[in-house]
Amino acid sequence: MEDTSLDPKDWDAFRSNAHDLLDQALDKMQGSRDGRVWTPLPQHIKDNLVSDLPVIGTSHEQISEKMAELLPYGVGNTHPRFFGWVHGTGNVGGMLAEIAATAMNANLGGRDHGAIYVEKQVLAWCRQMMGFPNDAGALIVSGTSMATIIALKVARDTRLGFETRKTGVGDGKLVGYASAQSHSCISRAFDLLGLGSKALRMVPCLDDFTMDLGALRDEIEADKAAGLLPFAVIGTAGSVNVGAIDDLNGIAKIARDDGLWFHVDGAFGATGILSDTIRPRLNGMEKAHSLAFDFHKWLHVNYDAGCVLIRDGDAHLASFAERPEYLTGSTRGLAANSPWPVDFGPELSRGFRALKIWAHLLEHGTQKLGRAISRNCEQARYLGEKIAASKVLELLAPVTLNIVCFRFSPQGHPDLDTLNGNIVLDLQESGIAAPSTTRLNGQLAIRVNITNHRTRFEDIDLLVDEVVRVGGIRRGC
Amino acid sequence: MEDTSLDPKDWDAFRSNAHDLLDQALDKMQGSRDGRVWTPLPQHIKDNLVSDLPVIGTSHEQISEKMAELLPYGVGNTHPRFFGWVHGTGNVGGMLAEIAATAMNANLGGRDHGAIYVEKQVLAWCRQMMGFPNDAGALIVSGTSMATIIALKVARDTRLGFETRKTGVGDGKLVGYASAQSHSCISRAFDLLGLGSKALRMVPCLDDFTMDLGALRDEIEADKAAGLLPFAVIGTAGSVNVGAIDDLNGIAKIARDDGLWFHVDGAFGATGILSDTIRPRLNGMEKAHSLAFDFHKWLHVNYDAGCVLIRDGDAHLASFAERPEYLTGSTRGLAANSPWPVDFGPELSRGFRALKIWAHLLEHGTQKLGRAISRNCEQARYLGEKIAASKVLELLAPVTLNIVCFRFSPQGHPDLDTLNGNIVLDLQESGIAAPSTTRLNGQLAIRVNITNHRTRFEDIDLLVDEVVRVGGIRRGC
Repeated sequence: MEDTSLDPKDWDAFRSNAHDLLDQALDKMQGSRDGRVWTPLPQHIKDNLVSDLPVIGTSHEQISEKMAELLPYGVGNTHPRFFGWVHGTGNVGGMLAEIAATAMNANLGGRDHGAIYVEKQVLAWCRQMMGFPNDAGALIVSGTSMATIIALKVARDTRLGFETRKTGVGDGKLVGYASAQSHSCISRAFDLLGLGSKALRMVPCLDDFTMDLGALRDEIEADKAAGLLPFAVIGTAGSVNVGAIDDLNGIAKIARDDGLWFHVDGAFGATGILSDTIRPRLNGMEKAHSLAFDFHKWLHVNYDAGCVLIRDGDAHLASFAERPEYLTGSTRGLAANSPWPVDFGPELSRGFRALKIWAHLLEHGTQKLGRAISRNCEQARYLGEKIAASKVLELLAPVTLNIVCFRFSPQGHPDLDTLNGNIVLDLQESGIAAPSTTRLNGQLAIRVNITNHRTRFEDIDLLVDEVVRVGGIRRGC
Repeated sequence: MEDTSLDPKDWDAFRSNAHDLLDQALDKMQGSRDGRVWTPLPQHIKDNLVSDLPVIGTSHEQISEKMAELLPYGVGNTHPRFFGWVHGTGNVGGMLAEIAATAMNANLGGRDHGAIYVEKQVLAWCRQMMGFPNDAGALIVSGTSMATIIALKVARDTRLGFETRKTGVGDGKLVGYASAQSHSCISRAFDLLGLGSKALRMVPCLDDFTMDLGALRDEIEADKAAGLLPFAVIGTAGSVNVGAIDDLNGIAKIARDDGLWFHVDGAFGATGILSDTIRPRLNGMEKAHSLAFDFHKWLHVNYDAGCVLIRDGDAHLASFAERPEYLTGSTRGLAANSPWPVDFGPELSRGFRALKIWAHLLEHGTQKLGRAISRNCEQARYLGEKIAASKVLELLAPVTLNIVCFRFSPQGHPDLDTLNGNIVLDLQESGIAAPSTTRLNGQLAIRVNITNHRTRFEDIDLLVDEVVRVGGIRRGC
């Protein structure tokens, strides 16, 4: 009878191939400072990727060659001069965790097995890191987008009653609040959860891009007067545009006064709690009903890895638990160990993301991780000072965390938006540095986000020199 | 100045450690037939996991030792006699893909880089595999639970109009239909999306556990008469309890007649399309508006890996796309290559799941993967025949795919549910085999699911012998 196992026929050959590929992968990681930041995937590799669905197999050696060929064509976030969006740099130790996790092939939806205990320990560390109680609900997720959906679902169901899970959200009277600088994952969560993104009020910001709490109070009162049901306020700990941290204590007080759920979007900023310089500015975050944050951003765990914490663990369970007969738990055997992770979120199949987080926190410890965060903030300040000292560069927002928004603004230029957009594209294509863009007060900004443990001050110097150089060329165009 | 990089100080030592761990991981994979199916995590390892949040780091060698120590304590799904739930077995080639993916540390939320092109090719293969058009929307997700949420959101928004994204779902008149044997991820999606799980009608099944289409028609008519808005019907291709495949052509016709969205839950069953013997029974699946299925179940890609397909790619985009100024696309540079994956689902941070799927389909090809599926069905039939021929075993459902539900039923035993529940727990704890349990028509069943490329007919023989042996001992208790 034909053997239908997918295992290698020749284990020695497979093993040798795996070691070769591992060396190529480690070479790539060891050379992360070298070469270009971003190189677009060459056309011939794009062309070679295209094929019909394969009917007959290919040797793993050939596939490894193709994968090794892809290695240089990442987005550039492993390079010390990647400054785009809020991408984490990743770390080399993650290779060890992924090797072990692949051999286990664990599904962390539930049941009683080793991987589950690792996630439990990671979640205990998360609670401790963020000042949440030991009985808070918690789950490892792919990132803050998923964490936000989970947190706001618990908030929704808590406000309307858990019967809502059966009856639906009904006539749409729930309204929530976040700053005009809040991340789009929040309004997207309102959409997904059936509340509608218009039910999220975008509260205006002060000049420092933090939420205007006076405006927040006014909007809550107006909505109440209109017969609506304010249910949640979302504070931002590190806004995506400029790194602003809302007055979390102030929001916590308003939430308490008005009986609102207080959620914190701390995607990258919340992990600033490990930095001695940032920690005091996150005061009030520990009062949140729920918190969403990522490990793959400023803590540099490899993609993807995030976490949601829910202060009221019972509410968390009440909003997600519901198991049919084929998933019934037991007191012994494989189905023991309730509650299961599936009781705290929408996913039943869940890979072993927790292992790489566990290994990373163990390997580096919070002190070193916090110092890398402090360093990035020093580098942002340094960049801000260089811009302030330049005659052709202009800061577009105060530098308060790790993000610098500025532009090249030679006197009398008629279209600074187009000019600066082109500078960023030219820089990306040059391979020298990769900032991104955003808009602030209607103006296009060169946006430099530093969540990069490999960045050095000399990389900042090079970035400034290149912006001025490329700007000069473009200006002359 | 203190170096805040997280990179190894001694690369040679790190490299040597990584190769050692890789060998231990490959040893574990090579020995997947050996030893116990499931071994609970020993108490001393549980105890050693517990600690405060680490402030100071640990060497990667020590962490690797701890991870190697965990390897034997998976759920058992890599073993040929794991028959619980619907866990895939995983595959060894996945190690190569994870090594390459870890070195790249890609975020597949969007932008223009190599990983995105790999996902695009995987999605093209998915459309081809499932008979969907080239312009269908598609996304790699963690599994069918997430895929179902995405598909039913598009269905919801299509029915109510895309303005729903802003205004919310309102007064809850939408109703959908799935069989009483459908998976809980569907009612959970109704809950999450704000429709409420009661808006999902659980349509009764025929004796073969497929949806009663007469009852479906009646329920639709009754709901219409009551002023409700039927919007979606979900067909199951491979039910979790017994592997039943609904009459997908029949459902497609009703959906067309009544203007309903036709979604197929094909978590494991849809991939039966690669098997010559199963393919004809999936007729009609290609007519679905959307399809959810997993790669980590019957195709044995490592956890987690699933896919959603949406026939109307424009509707898919209209239900998820919405990018703020800091995620604006461009025609060149890093922000090119729109639409981005974030435009098709809720996640903005997304790891490189696509690589392991790509490598797996390339390595094995659809013919071999299909034959492994056919073999599992033959093994289920063989098990069914052995049960039918036994005087102490009783089939509780017809064997039509890869799942066998039966029980040990010695004449005159007063409590077969407790007896059979204990048999399953004893078997799991024995380490010899790991089936799970479910309930059918109120009776507890030993449930044997075979989605395992390592299973041989001799493993089925051993399972039957052990059920009878353990049952005999328990009966004597």
